[in-house]
Amino acid sequence: MQMRSSENELMHEIIQSLKDGKRRVFLDIIDELQPYDVAQQYQHLPAKHRNKFLLYLTLAQLKELMEELSKEDQLEVLQKLGIEKSTKVLDLMENDDLTTLLADLEPEQIEELMSEMKKEESDMVQHMMKYPAESAGRLMNNRFVWISKHYTVREAVDKLKDFAELAEYLNYLYVIDEGKKLVGVVSYKDLLLGEMQDKIEDIMFTRVVKVDVLTDQEDVAKLISRYDFVSIPVIEDNDKLMGVITVDDILDVVIQEANEDIEKLSASGKAIDFKTKPLVAAYRRLPWLILLLLIGLVSGSIIDGFSETLQSAVALAFFMPMIAGMTGNTGTQSLAVVVRGLVAQDLDVKQVVKLIFRELWVGIIIGLTCAILISIIAFIWQGSLILGIVVGSSLLITLIIGTLAGTIIPLVLYKFNIDPAVASGPLITTINDIFSLLVYFGIASMFISKLS
Amino acid sequence: MQMRSSENELMHEIIQSLKDGKRRVFLDIIDELQPYDVAQQYQHLPAKHRNKFLLYLTLAQLKELMEELSKEDQLEVLQKLGIEKSTKVLDLMENDDLTTLLADLEPEQIEELMSEMKKEESDMVQHMMKYPAESAGRLMNNRFVWISKHYTVREAVDKLKDFAELAEYLNYLYVIDEGKKLVGVVSYKDLLLGEMQDKIEDIMFTRVVKVDVLTDQEDVAKLISRYDFVSIPVIEDNDKLMGVITVDDILDVVIQEANEDIEKLSASGKAIDFKTKPLVAAYRRLPWLILLLLIGLVSGSIIDGFSETLQSAVALAFFMPMIAGMTGNTGTQSLAVVVRGLVAQDLDVKQVVKLIFRELWVGIIIGLTCAILISIIAFIWQGSLILGIVVGSSLLITLIIGTLAGTIIPLVLYKFNIDPAVASGPLITTINDIFSLLVYFGIASMFISKLS
Repeated sequence: MQMRSSENELMHEIIQSLKDGKRRVFLDIIDELQPYDVAQQYQHLPAKHRNKFLLYLTLAQLKELMEELSKEDQLEVLQKLGIEKSTKVLDLMENDDLTTLLADLEPEQIEELMSEMKKEESDMVQHMMKYPAESAGRLMNNRFVWISKHYTVREAVDKLKDFAELAEYLNYLYVIDEGKKLVGVVSYKDLLLGEMQDKIEDIMFTRVVKVDVLTDQEDVAKLISRYDFVSIPVIEDNDKLMGVITVDDILDVVIQEANEDIEKLSASGKAIDFKTKPLVAAYRRLPWLILLLLIGLVSGSIIDGFSETLQSAVALAFFMPMIAGMTGNTGTQSLAVVVRGLVAQDLDVKQVVKLIFRELWVGIIIGLTCAILISIIAFIWQGSLILGIVVGSSLLITLIIGTLAGTIIPLVLYKFNIDPAVASGPLITTINDIFSLLVYFGIASMFISKLS
Repeated sequence: MQMRSSENELMHEIIQSLKDGKRRVFLDIIDELQPYDVAQQYQHLPAKHRNKFLLYLTLAQLKELMEELSKEDQLEVLQKLGIEKSTKVLDLMENDDLTTLLADLEPEQIEELMSEMKKEESDMVQHMMKYPAESAGRLMNNRFVWISKHYTVREAVDKLKDFAELAEYLNYLYVIDEGKKLVGVVSYKDLLLGEMQDKIEDIMFTRVVKVDVLTDQEDVAKLISRYDFVSIPVIEDNDKLMGVITVDDILDVVIQEANEDIEKLSASGKAIDFKTKPLVAAYRRLPWLILLLLIGLVSGSIIDGFSETLQSAVALAFFMPMIAGMTGNTGTQSLAVVVRGLVAQDLDVKQVVKLIFRELWVGIIIGLTCAILISIIAFIWQGSLILGIVVGSSLLITLIIGTLAGTIIPLVLYKFNIDPAVASGPLITTINDIFSLLVYFGIASMFISKLS
């Protein structure tokens, strides 16, 4: 938030140094910037200066720039750099970023990009791409420092020095045995406070919290936020240490998962942001809308079935949108409470039963309050006590049903390992429309002789 | 994810050691656990063992336990510990956690708890509580290592050793001048790679990214996730270094803010989780529902106004819920896209205009698709071409209006610095009900002679 005012100035200085061909001046400016800011400058730079900007950057700076860019911009940079320099930059990049970059590309493009990379790097990336999307294996990187349990503190500190440039965070060193098995962890604090001749296996912490390569990224996020870790080790069968996941990637995961929940809850379709083209956005939103339109027709056929009732008491129609709407609203509320709650904790059968009973009570309390209110309003407005009773009792029943539907539908999805957020507000609303019309016209039909 | 299977066993061992009165054995078990796990054990422990569990823990362990517990459990622990031991534990706690604990307590309770604390600590906490809720000042802690710019690398490393126990993360040391002003930052990597006699001011990074005590926590989260920092320094006027915010607290903020967005979008009321009592949950949900109920009555009076039209063509009622529902659905989608997008980036006027035009196009494309579909369905179902045209053209217009309402309403709120998420799916749905009924019956009235 602090640097805003000087940003135009900065851009001006950068362009000047590029125009003057003064690489030294340019690098002095870039050196003082964070990678994110370098990327911002690059993105806002007039297109004609971009080639020189890239030419002037060091390989390490290019790698950092790449990691801040969107996939489209990354590919543009790679193209501008040419195959030789691209390959060097890709070699330097974190494996997890590389995996993300390659994930959606065509096989030929991947092969072209990777053909010139160091074998070790490209093998690792290809291996990572075999893990399922959103798994720990996709998210991990190999920029961590491991030490043998037979090291002394002095040896560990020496190794740390050698790898300081490489490692992302230095808070933990992971300890492995002869078979590359993860057997412990030593924090940098432990090294600082230990004696130089202490053996690592004597000071290491053996109860390491770790995740499997197949663990879902949401579960990794839960662990990291629970334990306040800066990084967490990732293992494959037999405790073999494969990589680490760092908190910065987890922060991105948490933001992404929250966005996905909101996407699903609002049935707004995948990955629409401010830059999405209208046709693409419409295409992504339409499937849900068409489904909801067809379900909405069921409501129509219910009213069709009760058209005699409606014809003899048109006033019934006045309260239709309100009753249907309220049932949808209470259902949406319950849905949000369940989806939100499931992010924070898992549920067992006992808790599920308790939750359903809680929501039943909530439905009854809400239903009674709203039913009494609407009965009085209906009576005053339309001057018919019977109409008041029909509307009020319908609202009571539909609010209870709506609340339970909003609770039980996501729980059933959860039980079958489907993300409960796909139930979505609009879906719950549309289903509740159907329930509410059935109840409303059902009750009204019973009183029809007194209503008309 | 790894430790589940042994958890019952662990609990058994802990209870055994408590029963046997073997504190040494108990502490050996606890030493191997993460604070989160200690808290889990405490929470699942039968009530009769809890006093002894607390008695056996060291002060440092009690402090860590406290930081993992809910506010209710924290107060229970403090009560069990008694005033003297409580005070010692509170002295050890991080200021930000302490501020959270005290935030909602009665003034007398705060005074009682703080009366025995070290003056320095209680002054800091009282100072922090003066900052607004959700500001950086509330979130910061003072467990960081600062060094003078005149230090050598050796002096910095020595200071780091002295404070290793205290500091939360050691990745950065903040450099201050004589007036306590923040002038630079040195990473631990820099120290490792520097020469012992180097001056800090020569190796430090001067373009420090920092936040003000009054910065909103959401903006702090944006910065931390943007720059991949582990911590960020907090300053007050004149660049005076007041504290740091660490990434673990930011992870909690991001989760909390996402939950708040979902709460608001679903109008589900503040802070309802699986443990909230039915009466409390109903009370928190009712204000929105009652408001929506009253708005829903406006729909009723619109239908009332068109009751002659409806009476002469009851088939119009069949499509009412579908049209109202679809308008609400597309509005909810647009709302979610806007709210989600605003979390990621701020908008200027040019971008707002562009976004509104994008959504206008989306509305037209969606509207045309759904309108053609429903015209055909209505014609086939009811055998009336006119009805098909009325329903189709109404849906086209209401979908465009609904999409724009779902876009413009949150943007207007955002413009006036109101959180756009308060617009909420249910509110947009209810408002769109009104628009859609006006359009539908308006168009139907024009064709009424041909419909009945």
